[in-house]
Amino acid sequence: MQLGLSVSDSDVSSFTPLVVLELADDTKAEAITWLLNRIRGKQQNGGAELLVDQLLFPAQDGQKSNQNVFVVGSTLQRLLKGAEDVGLFKEFQDGTMRGFTYANRESFKDFYGDGEGFLSDAECQYIIKHELDTLRAKNEEHVPGYPKVKLYPGKSVVRRLQSKGVLVQYFPLHNKEDLKRLSFSWYKKIKLSFQPLDDIRHYFGEGLALYFGFLEYFTFALVPMAFIGIPYYLFDWEDYDKYVLFAVFNLVWSTVFLEVWKRCSATLAYGWGTLSHKKAFEEPRAGFHGALGFNPITGREEPVYPSSKYHLRIYLVSVPFVLLCLYLSFYVMMVYFDMENWAISIYNENPNLATGILLFVPSIIYAVVIEIMNLLYRYAAEFLTNWENHRLESSFQNHLVLKVLVFNFVNCFASLFYIAFVMQDMVLLRQSLATLLITSQILNQVMEAFLPYWLQRRRNKKVHKRMRRMMGDKELPLLEQVQLETEMNTYLGTFDDYLEQFLLFGYVSLFSCVYPLAAVLVVLNNITEVYSDAFKMCHVFKRPFSEPAANIGVWQLAFETMSIISVVTNCALIGLSSQVKAYFPESETQMILIVVAIEHVLLAFKFILAFVIPDVPKHIQVKLAKLEFDSLEALKKRTTVSLLK
Amino acid sequence: MQLGLSVSDSDVSSFTPLVVLELADDTKAEAITWLLNRIRGKQQNGGAELLVDQLLFPAQDGQKSNQNVFVVGSTLQRLLKGAEDVGLFKEFQDGTMRGFTYANRESFKDFYGDGEGFLSDAECQYIIKHELDTLRAKNEEHVPGYPKVKLYPGKSVVRRLQSKGVLVQYFPLHNKEDLKRLSFSWYKKIKLSFQPLDDIRHYFGEGLALYFGFLEYFTFALVPMAFIGIPYYLFDWEDYDKYVLFAVFNLVWSTVFLEVWKRCSATLAYGWGTLSHKKAFEEPRAGFHGALGFNPITGREEPVYPSSKYHLRIYLVSVPFVLLCLYLSFYVMMVYFDMENWAISIYNENPNLATGILLFVPSIIYAVVIEIMNLLYRYAAEFLTNWENHRLESSFQNHLVLKVLVFNFVNCFASLFYIAFVMQDMVLLRQSLATLLITSQILNQVMEAFLPYWLQRRRNKKVHKRMRRMMGDKELPLLEQVQLETEMNTYLGTFDDYLEQFLLFGYVSLFSCVYPLAAVLVVLNNITEVYSDAFKMCHVFKRPFSEPAANIGVWQLAFETMSIISVVTNCALIGLSSQVKAYFPESETQMILIVVAIEHVLLAFKFILAFVIPDVPKHIQVKLAKLEFDSLEALKKRTTVSLLK
Repeated sequence: MQLGLSVSDSDVSSFTPLVVLELADDTKAEAITWLLNRIRGKQQNGGAELLVDQLLFPAQDGQKSNQNVFVVGSTLQRLLKGAEDVGLFKEFQDGTMRGFTYANRESFKDFYGDGEGFLSDAECQYIIKHELDTLRAKNEEHVPGYPKVKLYPGKSVVRRLQSKGVLVQYFPLHNKEDLKRLSFSWYKKIKLSFQPLDDIRHYFGEGLALYFGFLEYFTFALVPMAFIGIPYYLFDWEDYDKYVLFAVFNLVWSTVFLEVWKRCSATLAYGWGTLSHKKAFEEPRAGFHGALGFNPITGREEPVYPSSKYHLRIYLVSVPFVLLCLYLSFYVMMVYFDMENWAISIYNENPNLATGILLFVPSIIYAVVIEIMNLLYRYAAEFLTNWENHRLESSFQNHLVLKVLVFNFVNCFASLFYIAFVMQDMVLLRQSLATLLITSQILNQVMEAFLPYWLQRRRNKKVHKRMRRMMGDKELPLLEQVQLETEMNTYLGTFDDYLEQFLLFGYVSLFSCVYPLAAVLVVLNNITEVYSDAFKMCHVFKRPFSEPAANIGVWQLAFETMSIISVVTNCALIGLSSQVKAYFPESETQMILIVVAIEHVLLAFKFILAFVIPDVPKHIQVKLAKLEFDSLEALKKRTTVSLLK
Repeated sequence: MQLGLSVSDSDVSSFTPLVVLELADDTKAEAITWLLNRIRGKQQNGGAELLVDQLLFPAQDGQKSNQNVFVVGSTLQRLLKGAEDVGLFKEFQDGTMRGFTYANRESFKDFYGDGEGFLSDAECQYIIKHELDTLRAKNEEHVPGYPKVKLYPGKSVVRRLQSKGVLVQYFPLHNKEDLKRLSFSWYKKIKLSFQPLDDIRHYFGEGLALYFGFLEYFTFALVPMAFIGIPYYLFDWEDYDKYVLFAVFNLVWSTVFLEVWKRCSATLAYGWGTLSHKKAFEEPRAGFHGALGFNPITGREEPVYPSSKYHLRIYLVSVPFVLLCLYLSFYVMMVYFDMENWAISIYNENPNLATGILLFVPSIIYAVVIEIMNLLYRYAAEFLTNWENHRLESSFQNHLVLKVLVFNFVNCFASLFYIAFVMQDMVLLRQSLATLLITSQILNQVMEAFLPYWLQRRRNKKVHKRMRRMMGDKELPLLEQVQLETEMNTYLGTFDDYLEQFLLFGYVSLFSCVYPLAAVLVVLNNITEVYSDAFKMCHVFKRPFSEPAANIGVWQLAFETMSIISVVTNCALIGLSSQVKAYFPESETQMILIVVAIEHVLLAFKFILAFVIPDVPKHIQVKLAKLEFDSLEALKKRTTVSLLK
């Protein structure tokens, strides 16, 4: 474990600091002592057996900084044992991935000597997070010094402190040297190579590495579409024969693309040891509340919340609220069309440059309004999902994703659907698509990377100046780094990044047969997206804790649903085209029936294709089967031995 | 273990016989000796440690019966250890289902004394089958006495003997007393109670019990439809409003019905311990052949067959063959319509009773021809699937089911689709539906139960007479029973029974809005079906080995696919109706668009419904989670203990 922080900071901490714990400034001393003792305590006594030290910031003129900042580290042995606790999978001598056990540590590949460098930084931090999270109350009835912060045996101490605001935050520290190396190979050189996914995973963990893998895969998959789309734009092919061809290609492509991604992600996840990683029993999330009862699964005391109430909240409050928001979104859309008509009428009355520019104003305003509504709705959805009081973080996340997805989908695409199928104006559709796509891309990149970076840089400078003033020319890089990172924004997970890709996928696939150029725009966007996302991960946000992930989860389902909807929209668009109508001059009915039949065949074909392509590549399947077979055999042998005894 | 066979047959066998092994009459003596030694041998030496005895039939005038018939039994202790080998789940003291281990046997519910009665008959026979199947060759290069019957280390001896015809058959024996009790509670009394599923499972195993559970569930689920359907027939409601209502009810019903069945089957399977039962590593099936190589998973020597050849055989031979058969089926259908037209023209020329009856002749002939084609195709499909050389029995079964399903679907429903959508003759459709349904029901019940029963009875009488002549008035019930059962037909699994239900489901759901009476007919059929199926299992066929099953497998998918297709057909039928057309007098196009839109909404609703209803009921989920949690905790404890050591 080579960490960039020099251990020569010996006056500050005597070990490699991995995680920062920030307690509230006014935390009672007895609570701090108690917590530190629990963190340092032996495992047999229910402690975490970790190393922890206080960071003492020199007092400053007037402005006193928070003194309750701690860094947590660990001995190598403790980390290795922790790796077994969290069920880490590592590469075995024979090239397969196996659950790491401390007893067999010597049999794992890349384990040399005492195991220095065996665990990646992200893994060490994940282990420490897990050990902190599973630090449980014993017989304490409340946190010492806080009679109101109740505890019960088995309650996670850290979660309770967090939900009561005593623990302000805890986050992993960046490793400056590794970060430099990573950012160089990742985005600092202009190159035509793939992203260093393994390095990203090493530094940020599997969840984020999978996102960047998906982003790259998606972009590459769009390249052929973009190439096919360019001549449509250049030569102004208005020929619907060609559009039909493009649409069919697009449909097959989107199915194959999503199926093949499953295989890619399985391959990646296998190599990273998360494919067979079993999730440990999920604890209630920090915000979950209810009367104290017994969990039917663990038999432990924990808050219990009646599921009837929870369902009532979802169906009587959340669902109507979402529907109301959707109605609002429709209303805004209708206002937009009124504005559009108004602009056109003004232009027609007096066509000049100013009124010509005015023509674009409604679209731009609408794009901005959509972004704002998405943002506001996002906050409302988070509040509402929180209020629904989900017991598990995963269930919370799924309900949040569902709420946000539905609204974003309607908000972004309703106007396009209206133009396509009610107004049936393909020229306007193409124009709106382009405006929406370009505006939202620019807005997104500014909002998610450059604006935060700019704010961050201002803050950095301030902190830097303050530290200089505080310490004169004493070199205390750790103190400065912790000070800086404490004030960075927290990265809220891959949610927004996936959502953006999801909407882009919608722009590309839903109306592909009308606007083949969309793929080109998305490819261009994604190339810069890789860089800006990489940049924001490395320099704008706090380092996030790694989360083991075997796939992109609910997003796979979301993308698949979108590709099903796109079959329907593309078939409908083709049915609306005048060229196709010209083939059936006498009977419109017949034309519609044929289009509907083709649509059904395409949908059936899609399902069959998804069914036939195996989700996990053969060679990974064999390796997984081998692992399972070996463990069954080992079990049998053990049984036989015990029988012979 | 109370077995009906009296152990007083002490001159025949000194233990309770459970399984019969029949070797070919001309088997070499050294092969027999070798096999018996292997079966009796200690487990440490790679034996099966079972009890086996030869049955000596008294020689008879001229006609010598096969002398190489053996019965296999086991000690109770061996069976209990075998129960652990096969991974049986049993009810624990605390009411949860847990993997049985010999060491903890005392902690399981219903385990008293030495465990007498703890395992059901079917389980004991399943264990013996497993032990026989996993009897592996050691260093023998071939079966003694048969230099051509090659062996290699690890090859299943029984499978090799079976594939080379040395082992003619092996099957479990009936238990006369239990059978009497079971058949009495099952079908011998006319009652309004449910079937004794637990007893069926006890006697025949989980696979069959699930089939009967499904049959019962399906029948009960049809009852409301049947009740709603009766007035349509009685009052001759030709009103399409009412048909639409019926169709919508039908669609919702079929989705809910299939989803709820998943939950029911999960509940049943949990109680029977098969829900969490993990499949052991699958051996190659008996018929699989190929050059000797190494299995990449086990590392053992076994036949290897290149997957490219296997895929070529599927795509270049099987798929074209199936398509050809489908074409043939269409051709036969067209001939049927010609016949139909010819019959009608004759009737129109000269309408009297004879020509009136003639009207029904084509339909009846067609129904018979369909049954015959299905039968022939079934043999061809089996041959072809065998020739494709699947490594695993499960893959063999899936390919067979798929082939047979597609053909049966087209064969049974093509004519109905043709009448409905090409001829658009709803009266003829109704008439054809009724004819097909009734003919196929009668044919099925005769072919699958009564005909075999009649043949069986004749055979029984013959055997009985022969035995009487052989033994005078010596009472040797075991010899007679074995003689009888050896000559019974083998039950080929639940395939045909599920297939029949699948087709009935098709008749009910595909055209439900035209012929609501179908449900009534199917309910009537299924009530007799329960009795005839029960009867055939108890008296017509050899007792089958039980097979652990957690669900109805590929049939769930088949039924779901059918219910999706039925949404499409019902919407189309409604669109074709004159009443619906009358609502849109000016624009047929608009009507079609609305019907298509409704169809899409219904399909989306179906998918959402299937997604929202959990597949496993909450209380079973909790129990499963508890089990997993407990085993994780036990693992942790073990690790901690070993760390402290």
